Amino acid sequence: MGTGITGMDGTGAAVAEIVAVGSELLTPGHIDTNSLYLTGRLNDAGWEVHRKTVVGDGLEDIAEAVRTALGRSRLVVLSGGLGPTEDDRTRAAVARALGRTTSRSGDVLDRLRRRFAERGFPMTPINERQAEVIDGAEVLDNPHGTAPGQWLEDGDRLLALLPGPPRELRQVFEDGVLPRLRRLAGGRRLAVRTLHVTGVSESELDARLAPVYTSYPGVGTTVLAGMRHISVKLSRWVDAGAGGDSVEGATPAAPDLDELSARIQAEMGDAIFSTAGETMEEVVGRLLRESGKTLAVAESCTSGLLGASITRVPGSSDYFRGGILCYSDEAKMRLCGVAPETLAAHGAVSAETARELARGVRTALGSDIGVSITGIAGPGGGTDAKPVGLVYIGIADGERTLSRHRVMPGDRESVRERSAYLALSWLRRFLL
Amino acid sequence: MGTGITGMDGTGAAVAEIVAVGSELLTPGHIDTNSLYLTGRLNDAGWEVHRKTVVGDGLEDIAEAVRTALGRSRLVVLSGGLGPTEDDRTRAAVARALGRTTSRSGDVLDRLRRRFAERGFPMTPINERQAEVIDGAEVLDNPHGTAPGQWLEDGDRLLALLPGPPRELRQVFEDGVLPRLRRLAGGRRLAVRTLHVTGVSESELDARLAPVYTSYPGVGTTVLAGMRHISVKLSRWVDAGAGGDSVEGATPAAPDLDELSARIQAEMGDAIFSTAGETMEEVVGRLLRESGKTLAVAESCTSGLLGASITRVPGSSDYFRGGILCYSDEAKMRLCGVAPETLAAHGAVSAETARELARGVRTALGSDIGVSITGIAGPGGGTDAKPVGLVYIGIADGERTLSRHRVMPGDRESVRERSAYLALSWLRRFLL
Repeated sequence: MGTGITGMDGTGAAVAEIVAVGSELLTPGHIDTNSLYLTGRLNDAGWEVHRKTVVGDGLEDIAEAVRTALGRSRLVVLSGGLGPTEDDRTRAAVARALGRTTSRSGDVLDRLRRRFAERGFPMTPINERQAEVIDGAEVLDNPHGTAPGQWLEDGDRLLALLPGPPRELRQVFEDGVLPRLRRLAGGRRLAVRTLHVTGVSESELDARLAPVYTSYPGVGTTVLAGMRHISVKLSRWVDAGAGGDSVEGATPAAPDLDELSARIQAEMGDAIFSTAGETMEEVVGRLLRESGKTLAVAESCTSGLLGASITRVPGSSDYFRGGILCYSDEAKMRLCGVAPETLAAHGAVSAETARELARGVRTALGSDIGVSITGIAGPGGGTDAKPVGLVYIGIADGERTLSRHRVMPGDRESVRERSAYLALSWLRRFLL
Repeated sequence: MGTGITGMDGTGAAVAEIVAVGSELLTPGHIDTNSLYLTGRLNDAGWEVHRKTVVGDGLEDIAEAVRTALGRSRLVVLSGGLGPTEDDRTRAAVARALGRTTSRSGDVLDRLRRRFAERGFPMTPINERQAEVIDGAEVLDNPHGTAPGQWLEDGDRLLALLPGPPRELRQVFEDGVLPRLRRLAGGRRLAVRTLHVTGVSESELDARLAPVYTSYPGVGTTVLAGMRHISVKLSRWVDAGAGGDSVEGATPAAPDLDELSARIQAEMGDAIFSTAGETMEEVVGRLLRESGKTLAVAESCTSGLLGASITRVPGSSDYFRGGILCYSDEAKMRLCGVAPETLAAHGAVSAETARELARGVRTALGSDIGVSITGIAGPGGGTDAKPVGLVYIGIADGERTLSRHRVMPGDRESVRERSAYLALSWLRRFLL
């Protein structure tokens, strides 16, 4: 993955930081994913995120993180550490950082007791800690859990304390924090256009687009190459006006972004498969629907990844008939009609087998188009002639039967993921 | 997700921080996943991670993050910002934080020129920036990319600068950083035992295990509930001795952890499906292999997730025959032999259809066992009688045909993921 960012306007006063609290987030198995959601929603509301910090459960560690964050940024959003146990110290740490005390809120206690009673559980004394409120804070109701959030203003600084479980965090943020932030940011919003590009290298893309970008110095441009495709993101802060805070999730108008986006599309042609954040499976689904064609898949080495990807799109039953996971030679013959002679002469991983699979699955499922994947995902099974990573993809539509192959880099899972993606990508070009 | 951590020994001197550099990591679409790998490998080498910071591309922002990190922790590992563009400021920022200068290294320049020549590309002047080395730093070779890493010692403080692309970061860390850190940590290593639990709630687990944990105050215990299962992780720092740095990836001996693990297993019985970090699909694969049985799957709403999960395990072709993605009613009838009367009388999402699918796919693929999934993933398609999330799972082995159902919470993708996992989990119990 390579990246480049230019021209991002960083002058706004609406600067936020995210502090994720939890020793488990400092272990190898866990990552702070709440911050992705928070960043997106903060951006929507006109706030830029300038730093993310993950800190453990230590009282002074959290307090120090809060103090330094408040020294840099107007808004600090904390997640986690609001539970009932001894390790949940975010309330106490924020109080310490601000030099305030906490006290037990009768209202919150009542709400907690009612919540436990409704569920038929006894409320234990440790749960009473969750009723501790920092002096001067407003309590933010948490309909999905026992830990309420808190909202604090300290001079011109703003703090939000949110529960760690994602479902609770989101609800508390949406109901209790976002409306306040929208008001405070005025009509300032981040306008974004995202283009997804496939089939070119990052350096080729960069070489072709650099002359275009540079004539729009006010626009932030991020190029990010992932395993599946390259994203080009164009963004600029705009004043969406007084009504800006009511436009839920919609991207503000920005004619210069649209113009730049159009120029990039003109340069890159159909290497750009999406300009509205559509995934490849959504694009393929739209093309199938538009052409009134149905699809079936035969998957050997990917064994379900392609089918699972296509059906991630709601409504895919309109064009997806189903598929066959032909993981064994016998399944290839029995269910997809591959001739034993083909397997004997060319092997399961070959252009011939890929083509017979595509034709066979089309017939077996009664679809207009059949797509097949057969390859060597590894780690074993490779030879000099057919190395690990070699994958054949077939497409048949009753008139033509095509096949292509490629040697995919990476480990077993990445060969499989890339193969399923490539099949989708070739199907898109076939449909175009 | 809920968590609890107790008794983690935090007294060691081997304290590390991770600073991820990159404005793209402060956008909603991207997260710093390098830190998961780094944390795991640092722990292996006897280093604890006390904080993770994500900072943008600003020179002074990075420098300030480095200064404060060095004030707290002996080791600071930085990732990203070593590329050739103007936005790549990690080298300059670390130099500023330490009050050092940088200079262009002839050796690194030569290596860069050779690298470009080998690939037949001209080396542009901007790539020369990647030859800037902080005074006093050692250059860490990057075999997979153009950005070399750097290793610095400043008094008793240690810094590693690593390239951002994961493949490059890993190689530079393994070759250039890890051996140094192992030596510096002495034989100190983190001993870990992980138990995976399924089929009980987090609160039930906690109630049953708390009396067991508390008699091992020196052991750190983390309980983490994910969408798939609950992980119980037991850990303790141990002195693995002088030879400790040669045991690549192996977990150090720790008899008290083994004893606690055995007591937890005795308490939880077969709700624990793995004690060696095995995934559910690996456990199912092992049980199939041990019993000499083969498997086939019929997937409707999951449409490939179960097959893809089973075949994630290398060697799964020994027991997995294949499957049918019976996304349409026609596929259910044509390929899995479901009777039209069954669909008419009970619908596609019913115990009867699940059972016929399991039997039918077993026959179609010639396997010993057939497993089926049929359900309503949403967002549309639900009714009062059959709500979104309702999923039936069938298992047939030629003697018995069983079915079970459950209403899964969450959105379309989480209903699908949970359904595939539940099918695996029930198959495990069936095989036991």
